[in-house]
Amino acid sequence: MTAYTDLLAHQRETEALAQVAGRLGWDQETMMPRGAAEQRSEEMAAMEGVLHARRTDPRMGDWLAQAVADGPVAAAQLRHIRRSFDRATKVPAALAQEIARVTSMAQGIWADARARDDVAAFLPTLAEVIRLRREEAAALAQGGDLYDALIDDYEPGATAASIGAMFDRMRPRLVALRAAVLGAAYQPAPLQGSFPATGQMALSRELASAFGYDWNRGRLDLAVHPFSSGSGADVRITSRVAEGDPFNCFYSTIHEVGHACYEQGIDPAYALTPLGAGVSMGVHESQSRIYENQLGRSRAFTGWLHGRMVATFGDFGLRADDFHGTVNRVQSGYIRTEADEVHYNLHVMMRFDLERSLIRGDLAVADIEAAWNDRFLADFGVMVDKPSNGMLQDVHWSVGLFGYFPTYTLGNVYAGCLHQALRAAVPDLDAQLARGDTTAATGWLRANLQVHGGLYPPREVVERACGSAPTEGPLLDYLEAKFRGIYGI
Amino acid sequence: MTAYTDLLAHQRETEALAQVAGRLGWDQETMMPRGAAEQRSEEMAAMEGVLHARRTDPRMGDWLAQAVADGPVAAAQLRHIRRSFDRATKVPAALAQEIARVTSMAQGIWADARARDDVAAFLPTLAEVIRLRREEAAALAQGGDLYDALIDDYEPGATAASIGAMFDRMRPRLVALRAAVLGAAYQPAPLQGSFPATGQMALSRELASAFGYDWNRGRLDLAVHPFSSGSGADVRITSRVAEGDPFNCFYSTIHEVGHACYEQGIDPAYALTPLGAGVSMGVHESQSRIYENQLGRSRAFTGWLHGRMVATFGDFGLRADDFHGTVNRVQSGYIRTEADEVHYNLHVMMRFDLERSLIRGDLAVADIEAAWNDRFLADFGVMVDKPSNGMLQDVHWSVGLFGYFPTYTLGNVYAGCLHQALRAAVPDLDAQLARGDTTAATGWLRANLQVHGGLYPPREVVERACGSAPTEGPLLDYLEAKFRGIYGI
Repeated sequence: MTAYTDLLAHQRETEALAQVAGRLGWDQETMMPRGAAEQRSEEMAAMEGVLHARRTDPRMGDWLAQAVADGPVAAAQLRHIRRSFDRATKVPAALAQEIARVTSMAQGIWADARARDDVAAFLPTLAEVIRLRREEAAALAQGGDLYDALIDDYEPGATAASIGAMFDRMRPRLVALRAAVLGAAYQPAPLQGSFPATGQMALSRELASAFGYDWNRGRLDLAVHPFSSGSGADVRITSRVAEGDPFNCFYSTIHEVGHACYEQGIDPAYALTPLGAGVSMGVHESQSRIYENQLGRSRAFTGWLHGRMVATFGDFGLRADDFHGTVNRVQSGYIRTEADEVHYNLHVMMRFDLERSLIRGDLAVADIEAAWNDRFLADFGVMVDKPSNGMLQDVHWSVGLFGYFPTYTLGNVYAGCLHQALRAAVPDLDAQLARGDTTAATGWLRANLQVHGGLYPPREVVERACGSAPTEGPLLDYLEAKFRGIYGI
Repeated sequence: MTAYTDLLAHQRETEALAQVAGRLGWDQETMMPRGAAEQRSEEMAAMEGVLHARRTDPRMGDWLAQAVADGPVAAAQLRHIRRSFDRATKVPAALAQEIARVTSMAQGIWADARARDDVAAFLPTLAEVIRLRREEAAALAQGGDLYDALIDDYEPGATAASIGAMFDRMRPRLVALRAAVLGAAYQPAPLQGSFPATGQMALSRELASAFGYDWNRGRLDLAVHPFSSGSGADVRITSRVAEGDPFNCFYSTIHEVGHACYEQGIDPAYALTPLGAGVSMGVHESQSRIYENQLGRSRAFTGWLHGRMVATFGDFGLRADDFHGTVNRVQSGYIRTEADEVHYNLHVMMRFDLERSLIRGDLAVADIEAAWNDRFLADFGVMVDKPSNGMLQDVHWSVGLFGYFPTYTLGNVYAGCLHQALRAAVPDLDAQLARGDTTAATGWLRANLQVHGGLYPPREVVERACGSAPTEGPLLDYLEAKFRGIYGI
C-alpha cells in the first residue's frame, strides 16, 4: 500500500496546486486589474510549469507500477491518475509548452480579429494552433484517430464515430421540429422593458439559492462570459447583466449553478483527489443544462419565476400563461451561446463536422470561412452577414479546444435521460417547481449522479442514475413535446 | 554569464509563484467563502512546499558559486538571492515546516484567546512558537545574537543594539511631548456624527487617486484588517469602514496606498526579480507613514480633506481650523494600531524590549503578562484592564513575527528624514497639499526612493534620498513642532 499512499499524497498536492491555478483564472476574469495581464501570464506559465513537472514526475511511473488498489474507489483513483500520467508523458514537454504559448497568444489575436471582423488576421494563427494540436493528437493517438485522441481529453471513452452516428440520428427530428416551430401560427411575445441590474443580481442570488447553491462554499460575481470555477469547498460562479435582457442573467446563473452544484455535490471524501471533480465535460454540461432547461425553463418553474420578476421589477406586461412561451421563444440566430433549445444542438453539430474535417486534414484552413457559411445557409437558411456572427464567434478554436464542442450536445442528451428518470422518481415534480422548490430534483441528481464525482466513467454514471444506457431519444421526445405544446402544433 | 542568466530565470519563476501565493492571501482576507478555509490551508501549504523547494534548490548553490555580476544591478540581484538562499538552506526543512504548522495553528488559538481574554489558553502555544523561533534564530545566527538573526529577516543590516540605542535617545523627548500635550489647556474636539459607508468608500477612492495610486495596476476592497498585497503590476489594497469613525477608513486607505505606491513606483525593469519589491519592512513603513502622517495629517492636506468631507457628508459641525486638531487628537489608549503619532512609537518600544527579553531568555513566557502590564503602567500611566487590551492585542507573536515590531518605528524615523528632505526639495508643498495635490511630493518620493526597489540596502536608500544618514532627529523635531503647534504649548 505504500506506493498507493505515496502516489495519492503526491496527487493531493498537485490537485491543491491545480485549484490555485484555477482560481488565478477566476481572478483574471473577475477581479484582476487590467494592467496586470502581462505579469499574470508569467504567473500562469510558472504555475503550469509546476503542475506539468508534478504530473510527469518519474516517481509517478514507479508508484503506478507498484500501487495496488484496495477496493473500487482506489481502483478508480488509479485509473484516473494512470490516464492523466499517460497523456502527460506522451506529449513532449517542448510541444506542450509551445501549445500553451501559442494558444495564449491566439486568444488575443482571435479577440482582435473578431472585433474587426477580419478573418484573414486570424487564419495564420488558427493554422498554427491546428498544426500543433494535430501534432499533440498524433503523440496521444499512437496510430489511432487524431480527433478521437482530442475528444478523449474532454469526454473519456467517447469517439467521433459514435458521436457522429448519434448526431446523424438526431438531426432529422431537430430539423423537422425547427421548421414546424418557425412556421407555427402562434409566436410568443418577446420580453420588453428595462430591468435594473441590482434587481437582476438580487433575483439571481435568489435563483442560485433556490437551486441549492451552497454560498458557504462559493460566491457570485460578474464576468463578461459567465463561468463556474473550482472544486470541493470553493466553487465560484459568475453571471452577467444587461438591463434589457434579464433572462440572459437568470439562465446564465442557473446554468453555472448546475455546474457548481455538481462540484459541490461530490462526496467530500474525494476532495483534492482525481475523483473530486466532475467526470467529463459532457456529464458536467448535463447538470448545467438540466438545471437551466428541463427544470429552469419548465412551465412550472417559469410560473414561479414570473411571480418573482413581478415582485422585483413590477408588472412588465406579460401574464404568467404567456411568460413560459416568452422564456422559450425560438428564433433563428447566428450565435450558438444565445440559441434556444431547438437550435442549440444544430449549432454544435455543425462545429463538430467542421472541426473534425480540419483535424483530419479534409478541410484547409483557407477554406474554413466558406465552408462555415455554406453549411450555415444549408442548416439555418440564413446567410452569415459578418465573420463575428460566423466562424469568429467562438473562442474555442483559438485556444485549441478541438473535440470540446460535441460535449455540449452530449450534455443535452444526458440531461434528457436524467430528466426522464427524475420525472419517474419524483411524480409531483411540477407541483414543487411551481413553488420554486427544487429540493427533490436537485437532491435526486445529487444522490444519483453528482455524489460519485469521478468514481464511474461518464456513460456509466449516467446509466447508473437512469437505469439504462443513455440515448438521444428522451431529449428529442422532451423537445418535441415541449415546443409542440408551446407553439400549439 | 550563463550561470547568472540561469539563476535569474529560475528566480523569476519563483518570484511569479510567490506573487500567486501572496494573492491567495489577499483572496483569503477579501473574497474567499468561509467554508473554504480548510481546503485553502492545504492549497497554501502546497504552494509553500513548491516555493521552499525552489528556494533551496541545490542548483542555486552552483549558480551562485559561478555567477558573475555585470554591473551594480546584477550585483544587487546576486546579493539578494545569495542572502535568501543562505537563510533558506541554513534552516532545516523539518524545522521550517514545524514553524509553518505551529504558527498557522497558533493564529487561531491566539484569536480565540483574545476573544475570551484568556491568557492561559495562549501561553503554551506562545512558548512553543518562541522555542521554534529561537531554534531557527540559532540556525541562522551561527553563534551570533539570536534576536539580530530574526530582525535581519525584516530589516537587513539592522541590529538590536543600534535600534535599542536609538530608542533610548528617542524615549525622553517622546515622554516629555506626551506629558505636555496631555496636560495642555486646549484639547481638540472629537469627531461626532455618522458617516455612511458608501460615502466613506467613495472618498477613500478619491484619496487613493489623490496620492497617486495606479488603479490600472490595483484595486481597493474591504477587509477586517487593512493591508496591501502584491508587487509590480498587481498591487491591491484594502480598507475598512465604521460609520462613526471615517478617519479610520481614510487613513487606513492612505497608509496602504503608501505601501502600494512604493511597490508600484519601483522600476518596471525589476519586476519579478528580487529588486522588484520594497527593500525592507522599515523602508516600506516609511512610505505608508509619510503618506498617512506627514502628508495626509498635515494642516494643509486636512484643510482640503475637510472640504471633501463636507461635500460628501454635509456639515458635521467642525470648522476647517479645528479639523486639523481633531484629526491629530492625542489620547492615551491601550491599542497600538489605534495610537496617535505621539503615542505610537512608545507602544513599539515596549514591544521591542519585551520580545527581545523573550528571545534572549531573560523573560519567561509565564511572566509576560505581568511584565507587559507593569511596563504599560510605567510608560502610559494606565493599568491594563483586560488582556485583549494588553498582551493579546497584536497578532504578531502568534505568527512568530519576533523582530518585526521595531521596523514600525524605524519606518517613522525614515519618514521623518524623508519629510525633511522633501520639504527642502518642494518649498511650496503646503500650497499644493491644500489643493489636495500630492503630485510633487509623491513624485519626489518615487524618483528618489521608490524607483530603486531593492537596489540599495535599507539605510543606504534613505541616505541617498536625504543626502545624509538617517537619524531620529527629524522625526522628533517634526512631532514636537506639529503637536506643540496644535496644542498651543
